[in-house]
Amino acid sequence: MMTDLLLKNVRPLGGQATDLLIRDGLIAGIGSELTAPDATPAEDGHGAILWPGLIDAHTHLDKTTWGMPWHENDREAVLRSRIDFERENRLTLDIDPHRQSLRHAIGLVAHGATHIRSHVDIDTTHGLRMMEGVQQTREKLAGIVDIQMVAFPQSGVMVMPGTVELLDEALSNGCEVLGGIDPCGIDRDPKGQLDALFVLADRHGCDVDIHLHEAGELGAFTMELIFERVRVHGMQGRFAISHAFALGMNDHARVGRLIDEIAALDIAILTTGAPSAAVPSVKQLLAAGVRVGAGCDGIRDTWGPWGQPDMIDRATVIGMKNGFRSDRDLRLALEIVSQGGADVMRLDGYGAAIGCKADFTLLDGETVAHAVVNRAPRPLVVKGGKVVARGGACVVDMP
Amino acid sequence: MMTDLLLKNVRPLGGQATDLLIRDGLIAGIGSELTAPDATPAEDGHGAILWPGLIDAHTHLDKTTWGMPWHENDREAVLRSRIDFERENRLTLDIDPHRQSLRHAIGLVAHGATHIRSHVDIDTTHGLRMMEGVQQTREKLAGIVDIQMVAFPQSGVMVMPGTVELLDEALSNGCEVLGGIDPCGIDRDPKGQLDALFVLADRHGCDVDIHLHEAGELGAFTMELIFERVRVHGMQGRFAISHAFALGMNDHARVGRLIDEIAALDIAILTTGAPSAAVPSVKQLLAAGVRVGAGCDGIRDTWGPWGQPDMIDRATVIGMKNGFRSDRDLRLALEIVSQGGADVMRLDGYGAAIGCKADFTLLDGETVAHAVVNRAPRPLVVKGGKVVARGGACVVDMP
Repeated sequence: MMTDLLLKNVRPLGGQATDLLIRDGLIAGIGSELTAPDATPAEDGHGAILWPGLIDAHTHLDKTTWGMPWHENDREAVLRSRIDFERENRLTLDIDPHRQSLRHAIGLVAHGATHIRSHVDIDTTHGLRMMEGVQQTREKLAGIVDIQMVAFPQSGVMVMPGTVELLDEALSNGCEVLGGIDPCGIDRDPKGQLDALFVLADRHGCDVDIHLHEAGELGAFTMELIFERVRVHGMQGRFAISHAFALGMNDHARVGRLIDEIAALDIAILTTGAPSAAVPSVKQLLAAGVRVGAGCDGIRDTWGPWGQPDMIDRATVIGMKNGFRSDRDLRLALEIVSQGGADVMRLDGYGAAIGCKADFTLLDGETVAHAVVNRAPRPLVVKGGKVVARGGACVVDMP
Repeated sequence: MMTDLLLKNVRPLGGQATDLLIRDGLIAGIGSELTAPDATPAEDGHGAILWPGLIDAHTHLDKTTWGMPWHENDREAVLRSRIDFERENRLTLDIDPHRQSLRHAIGLVAHGATHIRSHVDIDTTHGLRMMEGVQQTREKLAGIVDIQMVAFPQSGVMVMPGTVELLDEALSNGCEVLGGIDPCGIDRDPKGQLDALFVLADRHGCDVDIHLHEAGELGAFTMELIFERVRVHGMQGRFAISHAFALGMNDHARVGRLIDEIAALDIAILTTGAPSAAVPSVKQLLAAGVRVGAGCDGIRDTWGPWGQPDMIDRATVIGMKNGFRSDRDLRLALEIVSQGGADVMRLDGYGAAIGCKADFTLLDGETVAHAVVNRAPRPLVVKGGKVVARGGACVVDMP
């Protein structure tokens, strides 16, 4: 495997053009006078911006219909009915978890992603089948992109007896992180679900990343139940709340107090910039010292038609939603879909400095801000020193 | 000028594949057994969807930096300061109103637009210079795209003495529609601005299209002042409110009453789906019988970096903001950026039926919904029976 590389003429983080030397998959040197053994493969970056690998820290690789015939959706937009429709129809619709997660992940790599956190549905209808499909994809893409799996009880925990046992099994057999979903809205039993999740997290010593669509005071109530348990179980730094729509509610003081507590307990927030929902303010969270990552969420699935397997596209959605306009703000949007994800996933050796892992993408743009908005293919994506995508195409073919 | 055309194998409005015959710039026949004189030029639609020409009914052709070196923006996001920065710097920044409006309009045509309503800045610093630049573009693109101009007092009316006279002059020399802006927020004199606008509208017999960013109760108050004057001046059916953020306020009953009045006075609403603002619900407006069009607004200008010269892209922004997910909803998003604009601009002969003007675009997609989300180049754009863009490129070169 080619893990040495001399990359000429790139602009790390949008700075001055220079060269980059990679040895054994790590960034070994940055400068214009680098010396490398004659056999070292070389690439010309043509002055592109070099940025640490993009991170989709909240997605659902097992759900997309990407690359399949168009899925017609004439259903009503109710959360519970979306969940049930998908669970009941995903097999007959031929949404094969391996093939589809492979398509989704390849798309992300082609657009510069080097790390993915994917929720995988765990339910009593399909057991661990979705996890196994994504696991196959993870193995096939080893060395191309790192995929972390969250055991995600999409259909609920308490309303679907047997789910706790499946989550337990999933955490023993492939999933690194435990998921959860709307303890009030979906499970109608917040104490029941949260207690069950914390017992599982204790048993497996794993991080938790819970979907919380609950808005306003309901979501705030659930957050307070989470705070109590994070404190009691010593889960500081190991809990993440995805979506956290309650933090978008129209009560500045109330939201401020919730964020103070989130910061104090080092709970991470994952946002998708959901355009039709009230969402947390990225800047408000960062100002409080909260780790903030981002994800594409589902793309073109039975839930909805939107989305691209592209974290720059998601930076646009998040940036527009947050009212970002200045170059500084656009850079922040890009940081959220890169360093932000690394912060949430607590990745070691992430970055564009000497000693960091050689996981990065080149970006085409006059400046970092321009690269965020110009919708250009990624010239080159490198994972562990190896070229994994070039000119917008991944080295692994789409199935 | 080629205004006869036999277009084979297209799917009008996403229906069954058929052929289309154009005579003298009008749709003369739809069917599989059409006969045309031997000399009639022919095109193969390859089964693409045929859709009436897209309409950008709210844009600012004179503002974009599209095709120029990246404009770095490190300013604060305050409406008044954005206005002043642009007015004071547009010439030194070389934002030439003709060249830039040409680039913007060519981009829209390349993406399937056949009609544009552009606000053009009228102010005491630049007089009618922006209008004249867009006018040159309109003449250069005659037969390619129809451009309607709104005399737009971007910097305010009452706070910029001399502006009323310039608006008067603009309406006599090229602008078809009278604009306005935030009578409270920008002008600090709602009675003053609105009375002045209605006098001008009476004098020129023109439609009015006012920017109203004012949110919540302030915007509702301004709307009520507008209602009174529309009634007194008999402007029913000839007044449009752009943005109308007040209709996004969190008071269902209050918004409902405003919308009832808007419907009763046949006031049109133009939306951009502004991601970071509270915006009107498209469905709520349509259900009340209100005409609703849409626009890209400014793209990549000194105000902000976002946007594409592409009304399908804008349909996506509006659709996501409105929580659209089903195929039916996606079709509605496409209708807003086509028929909706025609309704607002009161265009004659618009549509895909026999007798309509042959102004349309082909769309690449399995279904209409797929065509909205798949980000494919427009295979062919036809204006008055003439091919004006092909494979995503306009027949007029970008300057």
